[in-house]
Amino acid sequence: MAVDHLSSTFAALADPTRRAILARLATGEATVTELAEPFTISLPAISRHLKVLERSGLIVRGRAAQWRPSRLDARPLEEANEWLEHYSQFWEGSLDRLDDHLRRIQKGQTE
Amino acid sequence: MAVDHLSSTFAALADPTRRAILARLATGEATVTELAEPFTISLPAISRHLKVLERSGLIVRGRAAQWRPSRLDARPLEEANEWLEHYSQFWEGSLDRLDDHLRRIQKGQTE
Repeated sequence: MAVDHLSSTFAALADPTRRAILARLATGEATVTELAEPFTISLPAISRHLKVLERSGLIVRGRAAQWRPSRLDARPLEEANEWLEHYSQFWEGSLDRLDDHLRRIQKGQTE
Repeated sequence: MAVDHLSSTFAALADPTRRAILARLATGEATVTELAEPFTISLPAISRHLKVLERSGLIVRGRAAQWRPSRLDARPLEEANEWLEHYSQFWEGSLDRLDDHLRRIQKGQTE
C-alpha cells in the first residue's frame, strides 16, 4: 500500500519511544546501542522503531554494517509543521477573541 | 492500552481522509452526510474516521442523535505543533548554514 509522505511521518511520530529517539538524535548521531540505553526495551525493538523512522525519512543511517549510526533528518518534520501551521489561526484566533473580550471589558470600565 | 495525547493526535493525523475531514471542518461544522460527500467511501467508513478524530480530541460532536454535527477543536493540533517547533532549529539551522556558506563564498570573491 502506498502511503503518502505526510501520513507516514505522522504515523512514525505516533509513538513516545520513537519521539524520544528523535529527541536523542537532535543532540547528535548515535548507534543502536547508544539509542537503546535509556530504554527498558530490547535492541530488536529499538531496531524496529529505527526502521519505521528510516522508512518515513526521519532518520538516515550510516552504511557501516556493525554500527550504522543514525542521524536526524528534519525535512519530514518541516513538512508536518507546514501542514499544522494551516490551523494556527484556530488557536491564535481563540487568543484574539479573548483579547477582544478583555478590551471590551476594559473599555466598559473606563467609559 | 493508555495512549498519550500526542501519540493519539499524530495517529489520528496519519490518514489523508481524516486530514481532509479536518480541512473541511476548518470551514465550519458539518454533519456526517456533508462530510462524506466529497469522498467515494461509505458513511460507516466516514463514521469510523470521525470516531478516531473524536477520541483524539480533534473534533467535538453535537448530541442531537440524528445529526451530530462535528466541529474542529484545534487544541491537539496546537500541542502537536509545539512538539514539532522544538525541531525547527534543524530546518531553520540548515538555511542558516547555507547562508553562512554563501556569505563565505561572496567574501572570497570580493577580497
